[in-house]
Amino acid sequence: MKIITISREFGSGGRELGKRLAEVLDYDYYDKEIITAIASNKGLDEDYVARSIEQDRWQNIPLTFHQSVAGIPLDTTHTDLLLEQKRVIEEIAKKGKNCVIVGRNADVLLRDYHPFNIFVCADMEAKIRRCLERSPEDECLNTKEMERKISKVDKSRAQTRSLVTGGSWGDRSAYHLTVNTSSWNLQELTLAIAEFSKSWYERTSS
Amino acid sequence: MKIITISREFGSGGRELGKRLAEVLDYDYYDKEIITAIASNKGLDEDYVARSIEQDRWQNIPLTFHQSVAGIPLDTTHTDLLLEQKRVIEEIAKKGKNCVIVGRNADVLLRDYHPFNIFVCADMEAKIRRCLERSPEDECLNTKEMERKISKVDKSRAQTRSLVTGGSWGDRSAYHLTVNTSSWNLQELTLAIAEFSKSWYERTSS
Repeated sequence: MKIITISREFGSGGRELGKRLAEVLDYDYYDKEIITAIASNKGLDEDYVARSIEQDRWQNIPLTFHQSVAGIPLDTTHTDLLLEQKRVIEEIAKKGKNCVIVGRNADVLLRDYHPFNIFVCADMEAKIRRCLERSPEDECLNTKEMERKISKVDKSRAQTRSLVTGGSWGDRSAYHLTVNTSSWNLQELTLAIAEFSKSWYERTSS
Repeated sequence: MKIITISREFGSGGRELGKRLAEVLDYDYYDKEIITAIASNKGLDEDYVARSIEQDRWQNIPLTFHQSVAGIPLDTTHTDLLLEQKRVIEEIAKKGKNCVIVGRNADVLLRDYHPFNIFVCADMEAKIRRCLERSPEDECLNTKEMERKISKVDKSRAQTRSLVTGGSWGDRSAYHLTVNTSSWNLQELTLAIAEFSKSWYERTSS
């Protein structure tokens, strides 16, 4: 079984890259499907689950899932949802099918399955452009506001990673490959990364 | 003309990767050749030039080559050598031949030539193992001492980068590709990166 995980900066095109990679390689693809599963298992609304998991109410709590949470004023619903997310991701791996998983610290949660871990980044200018092009019609952020939003989402991702893994988000040594999408067409980049990941899996099987 | 630059953590195998990449792609290769040219141009000893350029006597001076150095207690020989290094690297680019350049912030110095910029990293454990295997017989460092040496060399590289470019060393968004060599055989990784860089150059030419 081959698992590719994609961690990404907000606006870098990492999600699109993951989706295209799954298509090109004919792998299963998991992203929002994980939120759907959590919501279904817990009998909760999907939007609520998505918003709760991506909240940034906690700050700098050096905590892993294996440590006790006793005495720490954590939002228990949030912790509960992260634990359910961990369970859902482990279930995906147990299916034994090749897949691409976007986000959710799957690289660390599934480390025993030896996934190929990619981090996707981009120049701030390119991220702002991409986000402005794709933002909902009713959002209407200007460039400065979009830059703030990007920084805020990434900060929240870094905090969740610290909470879930104790590790640093985007730290180069934590991933097998870190790729900057700024000067690429995502379709062409997908093909280049698909080839690279094939080499990686050939390497481990030889 | 295609230029590939390799920046690397000490002990990551970046130099070997660069050399192999040049061989596979049939590109010119520049690493210590740059030191040889500086020494020859300045009538200085190569070892002296290498040691001077890689010294870490300066600390946190936010300075680019375009700013005035007046009043700052810099070692002028060191500055002079860095300027000569810049000139030598620009001369290499002006030759117009495909090449791989290892280190020396060539990615930034040659940014007008649109090089393909790779950063090579590895897990500390893998770097220590590699360095211990390759250290000169008279060095005899233990694991802890080698870890300190690796950190020291990388700190010095970060300082030189800050001095020469004003930018941050190893910052993911500064490179097109960041690759962790830890779980690779360098020969196989070279082939994978050669393919990836070909895709990158096809992209820019299309």
